Amino acid sequence: MPTLLPVMMTVPELQTFLLREFPQMAPMNLQVQSFDGALLRLGCGIGEAQLRPGGTVSGPTMMALADCAAYLLLLGQIGPVALAVTTNLNINFLRKPEPVGMYADARMLKRGKTLAIMDVGIFSEAVQDGPVAHATLTYAIPPARNAA
Amino acid sequence: MPTLLPVMMTVPELQTFLLREFPQMAPMNLQVQSFDGALLRLGCGIGEAQLRPGGTVSGPTMMALADCAAYLLLLGQIGPVALAVTTNLNINFLRKPEPVGMYADARMLKRGKTLAIMDVGIFSEAVQDGPVAHATLTYAIPPARNAA
Amino acid sequence: MPTLLPVMMTVPELQTFLLREFPQMAPMNLQVQSFDGALLRLGCGIGEAQLRPGGTVSGPTMMALADCAAYLLLLGQIGPVALAVTTNLNINFLRKPEPVGMYADARMLKRGKTLAIMDVGIFSEAVQDGPVAHATLTYAIPPARNAA
Amino acid sequence: MPTLLPVMMTVPELQTFLLREFPQMAPMNLQVQSFDGALLRLGCGIGEAQLRPGGTVSGPTMMALADCAAYLLLLGQIGPVALAVTTNLNINFLRKPEPVGMYADARMLKRGKTLAIMDVGIFSEAVQDGPVAHATLTYAIPPARNAA
Repeated sequence: MPTLLPVMMTVPELQTFLLREFPQMAPMNLQVQSFDGALLRLGCGIGEAQLRPGGTVSGPTMMALADCAAYLLLLGQIGPVALAVTTNLNINFLRKPEPVGMYADARMLKRGKTLAIMDVGIFSEAVQDGPVAHATLTYAIPPARNAA
Repeated sequence: MPTLLPVMMTVPELQTFLLREFPQMAPMNLQVQSFDGALLRLGCGIGEAQLRPGGTVSGPTMMALADCAAYLLLLGQIGPVALAVTTNLNINFLRKPEPVGMYADARMLKRGKTLAIMDVGIFSEAVQDGPVAHATLTYAIPPARNAA
Repeated sequence: MPTLLPVMMTVPELQTFLLREFPQMAPMNLQVQSFDGALLRLGCGIGEAQLRPGGTVSGPTMMALADCAAYLLLLGQIGPVALAVTTNLNINFLRKPEPVGMYADARMLKRGKTLAIMDVGIFSEAVQDGPVAHATLTYAIPPARNAA
Repeated sequence: MPTLLPVMMTVPELQTFLLREFPQMAPMNLQVQSFDGALLRLGCGIGEAQLRPGGTVSGPTMMALADCAAYLLLLGQIGPVALAVTTNLNINFLRKPEPVGMYADARMLKRGKTLAIMDVGIFSEAVQDGPVAHATLTYAIPPARNAA
């Protein structure tokens, strides 16, 4: 805990990487809001494409947000490894999110040589009393991780 | 097991419901391929928007496919309840899917009055030796389920 | 967040309930160490029965600890509902725990009328740099919850 | 699928391994009932120690049964690797199990070099209409897997 946290990529570097490598995420208007080596916050704009019947944000939108936040946190800590892959995602949907902006807070639970396990809370700008969803993700880190 | 399985919505009814209620899923070209009361198969076209670096299908695409297949299976069994919501999704990514068509096979593990738990295998048309991902989902069924 | 947190059972009441209702947990020497309405800490003694080959604590021991901590947190908030049941548990094992005492910190992610979702970190007294395991659990709350 | 399935340990070898390496599981009366290379069935006797208030089988008992069945399936396929460890377990509890004998059916979803993902259905001898619980587990396989 008191050890120095690595920052291998800055917020602008993460944002540039995101736009270049994941053009298909463009409709979500993802924005890396902050990263201090331990916590990465990723914002998400909500438009028609992210809504579900009843005017709530779709589950897949929140899953994509969680997945992306975890991925960027990992890259921020180990550098731009485009080939790290999700092996497990578990998500609980807690509260109905209003159709407004959201953000995800990702933290590392454990980073080993081959696996990284992360915790992601998803928040709505309109809901004050806690996360609207909570996810835990595992990423596999490829052996030759200096490739990209 | 030997009891008669309910079919509350036919394949064309499920397809119509899907297109009407989830216009934002249109880019995935989802198609209800079969439903016999127990197993629902949902196909998914793969285009640029579903790809990730390395030419593989993105995790969020598979999560959305699993979520949608489970939802349609539930509706097929209980009728068009637009407000049933996912409460938990757990997914394991098993094999790298090639950038070709995929399908999801959804089965009911348990359908209670308020919760339905489903199992979804995700397959690639290019991978023969087993699913490329496997998910388990829980949906909460709202009390007034005859609304929609 | 700023609302007053309910404490429906005190630490001694929770401990008494635990011993009376779960006599089969006796080998784990579980001890409710603290509960302030938001965070419940449950300690666990480790003996021969909790070990695995290699001198590490068994997975099932940590699962039982997580399950019990979540259950006691829920009861602490809503009162002694012996019939609340786990519907989902997801656990990630992060670090090898030494064969010494452990504790679980349980927090409520969302408590609805019928479902409660909780987050549990599991710590080893010998491991300083983070949890050895992390779990998320859902409990179903029976309708007549004032029964017990 | 049509490839020959490996059987690295027979049912009696698996049973002997279980009794020797996991003496603390003795109260569960675990019995390897069958293993054909693809499906491993593990039986479990239910006594006072496995019960919960209300006369049902405890969640931790079912988690331990799932964990053990998955472990034995993996060993049956790769040989006696005592140090393979669970990294993730996700379990859904589906039906109330009566206090009678249970069994777990474990199948491999994907076995890679470093990770194995397995699917486990848990059945009660008294419940005919489907599993009482369903789990998905990931095991990490240590590099020097021929050690034991």
